[in-house]
Amino acid sequence: MGEKEDNVIYLDNAATTKMSRTAIEAMLPYMNDIYANPSSLHTPGQKAKEALELVRERVATVLGCEPREIYFTSGGSEADNQAILSAARQGARWGKRHIISTAFEHHAVLHTLEKLQEEGFEVTLLPVGEEGIVTPEQVAEAIRGDTALVSVMYANNEIGTIQPIGEIGKLCRERGVLFHTDAVQAVGHIPVNVVTDRVDLLSLSAHKFHGPKGVGVLYARKGIRLQNLIHGGAQERGKRAGTENLPAIMGMAAALEEAVLKLPFQSKQVADLRDRLIDGLSRIPHSVLNGSRTSRLPGNVSFCFEGIEGESLLLLLDDRGIAASSGSACTSGSLDPSHVLLAIGRVHDVAHGSLRLTLSDETTEKDVDTTIAAVTDVVAHLRSMSPVWRDLESGKKEFIIK
Amino acid sequence: MGEKEDNVIYLDNAATTKMSRTAIEAMLPYMNDIYANPSSLHTPGQKAKEALELVRERVATVLGCEPREIYFTSGGSEADNQAILSAARQGARWGKRHIISTAFEHHAVLHTLEKLQEEGFEVTLLPVGEEGIVTPEQVAEAIRGDTALVSVMYANNEIGTIQPIGEIGKLCRERGVLFHTDAVQAVGHIPVNVVTDRVDLLSLSAHKFHGPKGVGVLYARKGIRLQNLIHGGAQERGKRAGTENLPAIMGMAAALEEAVLKLPFQSKQVADLRDRLIDGLSRIPHSVLNGSRTSRLPGNVSFCFEGIEGESLLLLLDDRGIAASSGSACTSGSLDPSHVLLAIGRVHDVAHGSLRLTLSDETTEKDVDTTIAAVTDVVAHLRSMSPVWRDLESGKKEFIIK
Repeated sequence: MGEKEDNVIYLDNAATTKMSRTAIEAMLPYMNDIYANPSSLHTPGQKAKEALELVRERVATVLGCEPREIYFTSGGSEADNQAILSAARQGARWGKRHIISTAFEHHAVLHTLEKLQEEGFEVTLLPVGEEGIVTPEQVAEAIRGDTALVSVMYANNEIGTIQPIGEIGKLCRERGVLFHTDAVQAVGHIPVNVVTDRVDLLSLSAHKFHGPKGVGVLYARKGIRLQNLIHGGAQERGKRAGTENLPAIMGMAAALEEAVLKLPFQSKQVADLRDRLIDGLSRIPHSVLNGSRTSRLPGNVSFCFEGIEGESLLLLLDDRGIAASSGSACTSGSLDPSHVLLAIGRVHDVAHGSLRLTLSDETTEKDVDTTIAAVTDVVAHLRSMSPVWRDLESGKKEFIIK
Repeated sequence: MGEKEDNVIYLDNAATTKMSRTAIEAMLPYMNDIYANPSSLHTPGQKAKEALELVRERVATVLGCEPREIYFTSGGSEADNQAILSAARQGARWGKRHIISTAFEHHAVLHTLEKLQEEGFEVTLLPVGEEGIVTPEQVAEAIRGDTALVSVMYANNEIGTIQPIGEIGKLCRERGVLFHTDAVQAVGHIPVNVVTDRVDLLSLSAHKFHGPKGVGVLYARKGIRLQNLIHGGAQERGKRAGTENLPAIMGMAAALEEAVLKLPFQSKQVADLRDRLIDGLSRIPHSVLNGSRTSRLPGNVSFCFEGIEGESLLLLLDDRGIAASSGSACTSGSLDPSHVLLAIGRVHDVAHGSLRLTLSDETTEKDVDTTIAAVTDVVAHLRSMSPVWRDLESGKKEFIIK
């Protein structure tokens, strides 16, 4: 196993997904035929423009908003950056320079907030507790008169916990504070609607739901004054310069519709496999599921195993043809333990022994069972060689995960 | 003609190009098979990472630089923005807050410079003369002790004039001033080499040379400290967050190599057609070629015709199945005359009567002859209905274009 690409059990769908046939097919006509620049006045350009406005309506329909509230970007990170900077600048004009977020946001959010801190903004990062969920009460308590923005991710990228976005949205709307959610891990996986969730700004990324890489959406509720990250031509109502990437946008819309249409039955199917996988891995001694078991993305399984190194674990799983992750792909290669796992209270030693398995609708029961057997085996193997584990077993050191 | 997409004579290749078969084929394996996130540590991820680093080498080879000097972006506008902001911030750290550019840059450059002006930078926009070419002497005279950056486009997007980049590069290197060139219209169309041109920062965009939309390159010479436009994950050596768009990057590299390999014979072929088109249109009375006839992109033809509106001209050409532009696609829809045409000294009335025809290697002699006949006919028709033209013909008003 693992030699042929086809034989790989790909359980890293939170890092990126395989493009769906539908999404690829949706792109090709816009690479081959309707390739003109949507800003061109001639017929081919106008055909491209019509396609662009039609696809904007389709995306708006899925999110529950108006087409003019949709801004196409190069992906989730760009959308996060632009959303947060725009809200901060809008706040600053009213003398509001306080931003609330959480300790376990994606770095596209956290690093943008750090930049704003350098500019004099004050940032409150709410703790998320062992369940990995921030409560509306925490947000309510943190809101001040000078709060410009609350930014809470829809679902965490490492541990998959789903946040009470609707309640936080309601609260922010009542208190007159702008609300942004990084919904990169949520859209296409759980129901997301910007109106019922009372979201002002939302970011999504196509390649997380079987769409193409390099394209995403920034939803900005009408009335919100976006700031350009990229200055130049007047594309996207002057808020995002650069020739519109129509092929990728068409692929994204097709993948989005496909994912949302499949949601009602597929999320149950995926969640059942997730639960089977969680149950199987829970039988490994001194293991712990990271984050809430119930308020959790259908495809996310995240564990810590005491006495081992997550990186060794995933390399040995890779040898057996299982593509897994220790946490976020965006921070892999870093020696620091995941800020997400630290945020839910894992101590360094335990956080280092993490494993993230993220499923898709292509994952089978056989894949899950193979994975349970492989992880069980590899964890035992790694522990048999670990001096830390010997100390734990002999009682020289105390177990943290009971 | 003009009803079937196939029958369109597409002469708007400066706005965007049709993707080459090679470029599309180069993308597909990275959509279908090698789709993993290059930041993932497992085998599929590492395969993607190897592909990414190999393609970075290929792009570096074409530009004549080192792989670590290549940063993949979402396109030319993003690359322009990041290049200029980075150089400005680097200058500011040394107390240098003066930037030199030209009056006819793309808006991705001009609007970024405006933003820097708001932040207290001083910007000198050099005039370009009727030939549409800035001289090294002009740059030399404008450089001051506090000049942080010179930014001069390689070739203009509307009138196709090629700038003496190598000489300006040499000068800037000698004077210790950073030099950026927006090479979006040049790369793939004329030889560009960052070493012999002594360029510090260069922007390019794939969809201008039959590559995919939504992807480009920022070349930054080693030692230049880039500032992030997009904060987040540590992709592109920490300078550009967001999952790498490997399929598009593969398509870009394939298109780039194809374009550069074809250059030696194709640019002559395209230039011959360009000259045939220029000769044909020059026979129209009271017409003028915009910019230098000699220092000009192989595929660019730009004219002004007195007494007509460029927009009417291109709409009537569109009816005849010829896709043309009045100037830049990025500013079409605007009622103001082109800042490029004003920069080369065209008065408002004349600038309004502009037509840009940009050829590709798919353009045929028949296309050119059809276009000459159509433009001649349509210009005559529009003039026959124009009160301005009646005043000119009757001598009530004087011709500006003799």
